[in-house]
Amino acid sequence: MRRAVAAEAVGSFFLFATVVGSGIMAETLSGGNVALALLANALATGAILFVLIAMLGPVSGAHFNPAVTLVTMLDRATAPRTAMLFVGAQLVGGIAGVWAAHLMFDLPIMQISQHGRTGAGQWAGEFVATFGLILTIIGTVRHRPGWIAPAVALYITAAYWFTSSTSFANPAITVARSLSDSFAGIAPVDVPAFVAAQLAGALAGWLLGRWLFGADAAVGLDDAMTER
Amino acid sequence: MRRAVAAEAVGSFFLFATVVGSGIMAETLSGGNVALALLANALATGAILFVLIAMLGPVSGAHFNPAVTLVTMLDRATAPRTAMLFVGAQLVGGIAGVWAAHLMFDLPIMQISQHGRTGAGQWAGEFVATFGLILTIIGTVRHRPGWIAPAVALYITAAYWFTSSTSFANPAITVARSLSDSFAGIAPVDVPAFVAAQLAGALAGWLLGRWLFGADAAVGLDDAMTER
Amino acid sequence: MRRAVAAEAVGSFFLFATVVGSGIMAETLSGGNVALALLANALATGAILFVLIAMLGPVSGAHFNPAVTLVTMLDRATAPRTAMLFVGAQLVGGIAGVWAAHLMFDLPIMQISQHGRTGAGQWAGEFVATFGLILTIIGTVRHRPGWIAPAVALYITAAYWFTSSTSFANPAITVARSLSDSFAGIAPVDVPAFVAAQLAGALAGWLLGRWLFGADAAVGLDDAMTER
Amino acid sequence: MRRAVAAEAVGSFFLFATVVGSGIMAETLSGGNVALALLANALATGAILFVLIAMLGPVSGAHFNPAVTLVTMLDRATAPRTAMLFVGAQLVGGIAGVWAAHLMFDLPIMQISQHGRTGAGQWAGEFVATFGLILTIIGTVRHRPGWIAPAVALYITAAYWFTSSTSFANPAITVARSLSDSFAGIAPVDVPAFVAAQLAGALAGWLLGRWLFGADAAVGLDDAMTER
Repeated sequence: MRRAVAAEAVGSFFLFATVVGSGIMAETLSGGNVALALLANALATGAILFVLIAMLGPVSGAHFNPAVTLVTMLDRATAPRTAMLFVGAQLVGGIAGVWAAHLMFDLPIMQISQHGRTGAGQWAGEFVATFGLILTIIGTVRHRPGWIAPAVALYITAAYWFTSSTSFANPAITVARSLSDSFAGIAPVDVPAFVAAQLAGALAGWLLGRWLFGADAAVGLDDAMTER
Repeated sequence: MRRAVAAEAVGSFFLFATVVGSGIMAETLSGGNVALALLANALATGAILFVLIAMLGPVSGAHFNPAVTLVTMLDRATAPRTAMLFVGAQLVGGIAGVWAAHLMFDLPIMQISQHGRTGAGQWAGEFVATFGLILTIIGTVRHRPGWIAPAVALYITAAYWFTSSTSFANPAITVARSLSDSFAGIAPVDVPAFVAAQLAGALAGWLLGRWLFGADAAVGLDDAMTER
Repeated sequence: MRRAVAAEAVGSFFLFATVVGSGIMAETLSGGNVALALLANALATGAILFVLIAMLGPVSGAHFNPAVTLVTMLDRATAPRTAMLFVGAQLVGGIAGVWAAHLMFDLPIMQISQHGRTGAGQWAGEFVATFGLILTIIGTVRHRPGWIAPAVALYITAAYWFTSSTSFANPAITVARSLSDSFAGIAPVDVPAFVAAQLAGALAGWLLGRWLFGADAAVGLDDAMTER
Repeated sequence: MRRAVAAEAVGSFFLFATVVGSGIMAETLSGGNVALALLANALATGAILFVLIAMLGPVSGAHFNPAVTLVTMLDRATAPRTAMLFVGAQLVGGIAGVWAAHLMFDLPIMQISQHGRTGAGQWAGEFVATFGLILTIIGTVRHRPGWIAPAVALYITAAYWFTSSTSFANPAITVARSLSDSFAGIAPVDVPAFVAAQLAGALAGWLLGRWLFGADAAVGLDDAMTER
């Protein structure tokens, strides 16, 4: 159990450091070409997701995301106490990752984002993005458990582009990104609506996934990951 | 059967939302650099195709494309009634995906494209693109069924670049893209010729594929997908 | 045998159409940004290579390249008569692919390139590129035969960037590209030196590969491909 | 043993030639757009890493990096004498690769970089980058040995973007890059601090990895690679 909680913290550290760090690097180098910056940001995020799920999936299930932990709890694959520890580890490890990115780029460690992200379109984007993420996880775990790492990595790569919000799809990363006034940031005032849309999307994805892939698929989520 | 039809609708929803949504995002951010926009559009499309085929292939065969459904019907792997339901689901789910993209990007939901795409070169492109897509599916299903997801994803990524039409290669997506006046759109008047070229290419690919990979390859298309 | 020769022609058709077609598309759209054009050209080429090797490897070994056919002949895995038919199919299919690219982009079918590519640096590049390609094939076939498709695809993607000549590494494609006055072209007068450097690199790769991976590795080249 | 040492030299030759060569190509073509140059550099490096690990991993373990060799020595999987031969081969082969890149691009063979890379942020970057690389290797070898090639390739692709130093993460490549006054170069005076940060990060990664993935994971590093 201690290893699993540590794995959630380590994975969230690298995931969030990559999201924020590659955003800083991309914005700095791209000379104002936002499409190029988002391309680099999306490729780096997808690449590290593959790595982290491949190496930490067998230890903790590689959630790195309270919405994923919630779904596994609904399926009784994660106990409520474990879920709380996981979410805590995601926040602590992830915020440390954001701060590490600031340290590496010689920026002030403590920041508050001023990057406004709001409106019905972006909320719809977060709903759709998280809905699709949960469907991807349930369906892949059910039918091709060995492919969850590339599937999740490529889903997020695509979702950066097909949603207007660039697909946060993760309550912990939404909170952590509010602590970085950089490319990937989000103003704290805009966090609650994003998180609400993500949780609603996760719930919808879970309900559809149970029916579409069979109820046993969802229940076995954690096990299938561990079995790899 | 109801799950398979739903899988075709869900998959087409995400596929078409990605094609149109990433096109809007890419065009907005790229500041007029069309190569960069197409690069993002192609990567997002290839990425989501991998995900959707991996997760929905075992449920419905992951057609998302009337030309693919037609070929499996010619091989008697899909019954005519099922084929009709699949094509209906592809259109309904796919158009909903286009509308979801408009919603996410705060654009008017209902649109008609004014993007002219016509001429012998582009029709040749659609013929070649669909011809190659069907060959890819038949050959991969025959020899490496586990690799159909990356093969189709990478085929479309390449075909976006090697055809002058950016490779629609799918009658349902051609219709749906006529309902978006954005980067990925096509004027309704240009749809019929595109669809005709796609169906001719699919037929040619089926004929060559039967000979090149053996008739049993084609017949088993649907099963091989389901077996994964 | 007839199927294998046809597979070489079909594969070379799509490979060469992609190299030339994506080059035309990329140059047209990139507004003079050559790095962006080469990026698109490299990604499209790598993507289609994965697809073609995955689907046609079991039929013909997926050479699409006289230098590869030569190496398999040195290993007695391909009979001299078969090798001649393969090289003929690569040239005929490949040139048809170049012409199809011109047709799709509404360009004159018959062209002669005026793109000079010469000098010791570029010849060294072609030597190194083909040397590495043959090593990649021999080593991957020996130790991970199932991964030859991604290995060759990613090798060529990298080699487009690490060689000054953008890594033709294929005598048939060198000849075919002399027939396209576009991004991927090469003036006919510069073809012989490129081909000579490629064949020398292939021979060197074969000699090192036999020692490094064991002589049996090289001998089994064709079979290992077929076994996939 | 002679084959394994040769494999380290050949792999380092291609890896370092790709890092430096693709950097030269990217800088030349990108017209001052550094984000685009780094994107090409990162993709080429990731692509060749996949290829080299897939083909040479079974021969030598595919270290190409003294920090990796050190970790396997700590685990008693590599004998000290072998480790010294490996590091020598990495330096000799790698520097030859840098010089080959200069030759291919018609540049003076012998160069000394004037590219300053220093400061606490970049040292933190090298620590984090190497820390994560060693964790990736230990965790992947433990749980998914067949996926070490894509995992390491994608880790480095991401790390080019999330660290301020573009993630050298390799003492041998740090030395070799000091011999190239190009995009990928580093001034010799800045080499020692980079190497120190890398070795510290490797040690930290080894300690955490032993606990997180189990001590047996680390010990079997070399074997797991060979077993593939």
